[in-house]
Amino acid sequence: GADPSEARSIRERVPPLLTDLYQFTMAYAYWRTGRHREPAVFELFFRDNPFGGGFSLFAGLHDCLLFLRSFRFTDQDVDFLRSVLPPATDPAFFEFLRGLDCSGVTLRSVPEGTVVFARVPLMEVAGPLAVVQLLETSLLCLVNYASLVCSNAARFRLAAGPRRRLLEMGLRRAQGPDGGLTASRYTYIGGFDLTSNVQAGFLFGTPVAGTMAHSYVTSFTSLEEVWPQTLVAANGDPDPVDFISLTKGWLSRVCELLGAESGKIREGELAAFLSYAIAYPHNFLPVIDSYSVGCSGLLNFCAVALALSELGYRPVGVRLDSGDLCSQSVDVRRVFKLCNEHFSVSTFDSLIIVGTNNISEQSMAELNKKENEIDVVGVGTHLVTCTKQPSLGCVYKLVEVRGRPTMKISEDPQKSTVPGRKAVYRLMDTEGHPFLDLVCLAVEPPPQVGVPLSYRLLGDDSVHSVTPAQVTCLRQEVFTRGEVTHPLCSAKETRAKVQVSLQSLHPRHKRLQDPDSYTVALSEKVHKLVTEIRRGSSNDSNFLWAN
Amino acid sequence: GADPSEARSIRERVPPLLTDLYQFTMAYAYWRTGRHREPAVFELFFRDNPFGGGFSLFAGLHDCLLFLRSFRFTDQDVDFLRSVLPPATDPAFFEFLRGLDCSGVTLRSVPEGTVVFARVPLMEVAGPLAVVQLLETSLLCLVNYASLVCSNAARFRLAAGPRRRLLEMGLRRAQGPDGGLTASRYTYIGGFDLTSNVQAGFLFGTPVAGTMAHSYVTSFTSLEEVWPQTLVAANGDPDPVDFISLTKGWLSRVCELLGAESGKIREGELAAFLSYAIAYPHNFLPVIDSYSVGCSGLLNFCAVALALSELGYRPVGVRLDSGDLCSQSVDVRRVFKLCNEHFSVSTFDSLIIVGTNNISEQSMAELNKKENEIDVVGVGTHLVTCTKQPSLGCVYKLVEVRGRPTMKISEDPQKSTVPGRKAVYRLMDTEGHPFLDLVCLAVEPPPQVGVPLSYRLLGDDSVHSVTPAQVTCLRQEVFTRGEVTHPLCSAKETRAKVQVSLQSLHPRHKRLQDPDSYTVALSEKVHKLVTEIRRGSSNDSNFLWAN
Repeated sequence: GADPSEARSIRERVPPLLTDLYQFTMAYAYWRTGRHREPAVFELFFRDNPFGGGFSLFAGLHDCLLFLRSFRFTDQDVDFLRSVLPPATDPAFFEFLRGLDCSGVTLRSVPEGTVVFARVPLMEVAGPLAVVQLLETSLLCLVNYASLVCSNAARFRLAAGPRRRLLEMGLRRAQGPDGGLTASRYTYIGGFDLTSNVQAGFLFGTPVAGTMAHSYVTSFTSLEEVWPQTLVAANGDPDPVDFISLTKGWLSRVCELLGAESGKIREGELAAFLSYAIAYPHNFLPVIDSYSVGCSGLLNFCAVALALSELGYRPVGVRLDSGDLCSQSVDVRRVFKLCNEHFSVSTFDSLIIVGTNNISEQSMAELNKKENEIDVVGVGTHLVTCTKQPSLGCVYKLVEVRGRPTMKISEDPQKSTVPGRKAVYRLMDTEGHPFLDLVCLAVEPPPQVGVPLSYRLLGDDSVHSVTPAQVTCLRQEVFTRGEVTHPLCSAKETRAKVQVSLQSLHPRHKRLQDPDSYTVALSEKVHKLVTEIRRGSSNDSNFLWAN
Repeated sequence: GADPSEARSIRERVPPLLTDLYQFTMAYAYWRTGRHREPAVFELFFRDNPFGGGFSLFAGLHDCLLFLRSFRFTDQDVDFLRSVLPPATDPAFFEFLRGLDCSGVTLRSVPEGTVVFARVPLMEVAGPLAVVQLLETSLLCLVNYASLVCSNAARFRLAAGPRRRLLEMGLRRAQGPDGGLTASRYTYIGGFDLTSNVQAGFLFGTPVAGTMAHSYVTSFTSLEEVWPQTLVAANGDPDPVDFISLTKGWLSRVCELLGAESGKIREGELAAFLSYAIAYPHNFLPVIDSYSVGCSGLLNFCAVALALSELGYRPVGVRLDSGDLCSQSVDVRRVFKLCNEHFSVSTFDSLIIVGTNNISEQSMAELNKKENEIDVVGVGTHLVTCTKQPSLGCVYKLVEVRGRPTMKISEDPQKSTVPGRKAVYRLMDTEGHPFLDLVCLAVEPPPQVGVPLSYRLLGDDSVHSVTPAQVTCLRQEVFTRGEVTHPLCSAKETRAKVQVSLQSLHPRHKRLQDPDSYTVALSEKVHKLVTEIRRGSSNDSNFLWAN
């Protein structure tokens, strides 16, 4: 499989210049005024669950950790910054940048692959003001799309049901080469089984799949192009069999069985199938709709698959790439059963049908409601571009500086931030379903199982009360003193976590349409701090001339 | 600026494994049947102009050329392929892959940065069947998003009008780190002036811009945090001036002039502005809506800017990041004019107003219709994710193999392909506006200026006639025998080409809403070939058993 050292070298290559220029001008202004080492705390969160849903998945942490670990400016980086920052910039600032790393940064984070909700602070980034400011754009960039596309994949997985296998095939529609790579990684984590992207398999160990495109089929016109024309049996019998004649015999019998007009069968398509089957007799899964499924593709498939079966091989299945996938798949399955009954080929019992045709979340959900026989669904454009909502909108907000809680006060309570360093607890009911995430001050004792606690909602003064049956602390320290302090998970491990986390979520929150909204609450102490700062802000020394 | 060698090393790193697995299984099947060296020709095109518009821009060629030039499998790549391709794969195939490069490939392409239309073959990729098949996904990936986001940028540019400067700031919303980099490159090419993405400046020489975020402003609470508190005058006078006192004086006068309540002015905001101005006295452009534009931000700005002006510096302007940008900008401009008149500060005449607030193409167009004073618009999410249509849908279709034209026949004429090797000519009217792209066979003589020619439309049998006033050949050979045969353009050069190409386009095709559709036509010879293949396809040896 993949060489982890290579994988690491590519994933670690997010350069510290991949950020917005204003991070540097602000870092300089902090440095210039001597505030760059002040302890500061930022929180990363999003304000609305994506796709009109009731939840999101948190992803991208792995990449953030690699980024933090390797965060360092090269001489070349600093030379470039010298050329773009204003000429007034003190040369000593560039020396400062040259020596910068994340040894002073501590990251507390929700584990990657966890179900999360709008307004829960997912990451807390604490460290010297100038450094944690510089990290903003890169961390947002690494979390935003990863979480979005992972959540999108999870929704496709929910829409598809657990039985069906899902193939990601969006590379050609993604935002350039590495947009595609990111998509492949995080859709796998979100619940897809396979990707078409070979480089993703190489880097992340993601299972890869794919067989043939229409161009392969249409590149053949005649059986004369098939070479070799023979195949040896799977049992190792050394005598090669004339595979073309064998298949032609089966084709006649198939036509007879189905009452099909043999005159509409495409020779080029048969040649393509034959040559592919001879090359890969164990992996025969052609695309059967290049011309006509019923009049040509399905007949050719059955003939080749019957010939393969006769030689002891197990054909894999077919791909449908156009038209009404459901009704076609039912027709195709019926023919497979008929062949099995009539020719006694048990291999036809386990043939798989792959459907790929501009599948959206909606068409996936519809597909799940209609009668169909599709075993594997391939999804490209709608999955990787997240057509339904192409950005998540994570933000990174200052909540404390020099030990002083700060908050952005907006007339819209949803746009205000929640001040101070916090702990986040997830409360579960007696059935193990999470039902409330409680944002507390870091210094508060955690909620106790079986003990009633009161809480508040943002922008609402009424007091609510609840008794948790279980409590977990949602975040953990994952990076400090320049070191990753929690084992990095492979894509496969994180993928398993996603499923565990989703399984515990109550169906009412998991519904794709009109879910019940999940409660994200503030502790009484947080609420008090918010109220104090709001009150203070409107009548104290924050104003230049207190009248 | 950027070191071109570094830039090259990153842009050339698209690995040949970044493709769909089926490209390899098909390449193997071609190889196994001895067809891998057959000369084949693919065409790359899209079927619909994006965003409901009348045109697109063609971009991504530069990256394609770097990809072709460096296309080679490493031992590690081949080892990985050995692990994912079926065990039946002949080991000699991996030797074949190991020796593969693009020395047999010829690419003819529309120049990057050209206005193009749906169904025009943009690229023709000719070479050994197995190689040109392997290139499919990577070329699509490199052209699709580049052309889409470049076209999106061009539409924002058209919506904004030529006067306004446009800043791309979408890094945090893009598909991961390199999705963001691709966005920055191609939005600049499409007509944006600036990017916030520093790494894009480093790699592509794109002008970068940015000053401060709200977090910078809210991190300050008191004037005590401002240090140093002095500034020397721009004329070099060595005596430092107490910049805080100077500004406070100006603030009183500004409040008096505007009849503003000084009691609502935020001390932290003033501290933030002062410290920034002291750090960068030549580059003062703060965000003024952290608290209240009218009650605090604008007053603080004017005071600091007046103090800077008194010391001989030229303040740059302000940024508005929320609310109604148009009406606020008008208010802000009015205050600037008032200050200028009242305090005789000419620097206030040329202050710029930057607006950034979730700008979409529509809000940009509306902004252009309403009275406003915004000089620079920053665009993020809607620009880089192309919310209006997040994928272009380029396809790559086989048009000739072993000298034989091939076509995909579909009941929907728009889904059929056009067979054979072609030349594409762009016909211009007497005013120099292109009005028709003519797809001819490569062997046909080009259309003659002033000579009437007849043409056909796809899926329509009627004959049309036209007389061009000018004719250009749309594509040129850009890669052959492993070499790039046409000078690679810098992002800046391609950006200029985009503007030239857009300027020649008639306004009726350039309209963002309900444009007139541009004619893409077939020559009589192409039409004849299509007809012959269609006819042949329905009654000849392409069928297995011609009845």
